[in-house]
Amino acid sequence: MVASSEFAGPQDPFGDPVYKAAVIDLLGAVAYGEVSAVERLTDDAKMAPSLEDKTALLAMAAAQHAKIQPVLDRLEELGADSYAAMESLRAGFDEFHIHTKPADWWESLVKAYVGDGLANDFYREVAGFLDEETHKLVVTTLEDVGRADFVVDRVRAGIERDHLIGGRLALWGRRLMGEALTQAQQVAATREGLSELITGDHIPGLDLGSIGEMITRLTQRHVERMGKLGLEH
Amino acid sequence: MVASSEFAGPQDPFGDPVYKAAVIDLLGAVAYGEVSAVERLTDDAKMAPSLEDKTALLAMAAAQHAKIQPVLDRLEELGADSYAAMESLRAGFDEFHIHTKPADWWESLVKAYVGDGLANDFYREVAGFLDEETHKLVVTTLEDVGRADFVVDRVRAGIERDHLIGGRLALWGRRLMGEALTQAQQVAATREGLSELITGDHIPGLDLGSIGEMITRLTQRHVERMGKLGLEH
Repeated sequence: MVASSEFAGPQDPFGDPVYKAAVIDLLGAVAYGEVSAVERLTDDAKMAPSLEDKTALLAMAAAQHAKIQPVLDRLEELGADSYAAMESLRAGFDEFHIHTKPADWWESLVKAYVGDGLANDFYREVAGFLDEETHKLVVTTLEDVGRADFVVDRVRAGIERDHLIGGRLALWGRRLMGEALTQAQQVAATREGLSELITGDHIPGLDLGSIGEMITRLTQRHVERMGKLGLEH
Repeated sequence: MVASSEFAGPQDPFGDPVYKAAVIDLLGAVAYGEVSAVERLTDDAKMAPSLEDKTALLAMAAAQHAKIQPVLDRLEELGADSYAAMESLRAGFDEFHIHTKPADWWESLVKAYVGDGLANDFYREVAGFLDEETHKLVVTTLEDVGRADFVVDRVRAGIERDHLIGGRLALWGRRLMGEALTQAQQVAATREGLSELITGDHIPGLDLGSIGEMITRLTQRHVERMGKLGLEH
């Protein structure tokens, strides 16, 4: 079930070039985020302790891959070059991943769940302010492909066997949150469309106040995810 | 179109435990080979010079991934533990990949085409001696997912821009062939089922003479592939 967006803007919001540019930015970020998730799931599969875990991760990567094309198609439909749209957001993602390279299987599991969970919550929140079609596409694209259950199961079992893992992973989760915020701020600062969208009057309901509430919700859900893993925030 | 196997053995060849063990070995090798191909395609995508090339490789990885499950299903049908079947062949594969780690985008392209082409020819040849169902499954699993055309196109264009690449890649192709033969011999030597299958009287038509002819055909096709890439053997 996809909840409706609360969009109360004009019937064809794409007449506003600032709105359109922001949607293209968002979809470019979502698409490149998926590409990047496929690559990292496959990387993590190399560290998997068993062939069962390895093939489980590869199956998730393939399921995730299947979600990329509809976003690229929509970008082209909007008149954008889908590769250019991804390319312009790429540096921020790559920077984040360079700063948060998992040292082992456990860190990679937590990063997949906590890091991607945070990013996906953010995209869904933003999409909630946008037109119905964009909102639906983003929510469908970001549906979990079974990774959350897999990670929660493995991490909890790991902590049960070795309590020291828990303390280390709790620190790791905090670091992921910090790096994600840093990168998000930098992306917002360098993408003019996004900042104009937020500070301007392009989307009814989206202002600095509602963004503050959004950040509160994102933080709350991050804490919940850490809790599910059995980790203190 | 899948050509028929030339199998002229008993109607239920799986009554012979040596035959069954050899088929399980072969399917385990094919399945792990696919798993390994998915991982390497995704690794290669990291070196891709453009997002177009990157997403093209990831699409091939996903297509390749779709072919794994039917092989695992068949292994379970034969009463084998599909993971154990892959595991027992894994060391040989991993050894080959450790010895043939591509240094750049070009070497990874050539390895994907020449190395996997050689391995796939080998599996198809062996499957041609086996029962119809095994033969069909192997041939279908190893169907090209568009990689050959992609690699040929990119490598030829690369050599055209820089002739020095050609000489280096020709040497690389020879090295891949050498390492593949070394590993194949070691696998054959350590898997009793396989050697008994070859030296024993389990499959009509499969003897040292026909294996010699098979190796001649494999070499011939390797030379053809190098030629398609514009490389001297």
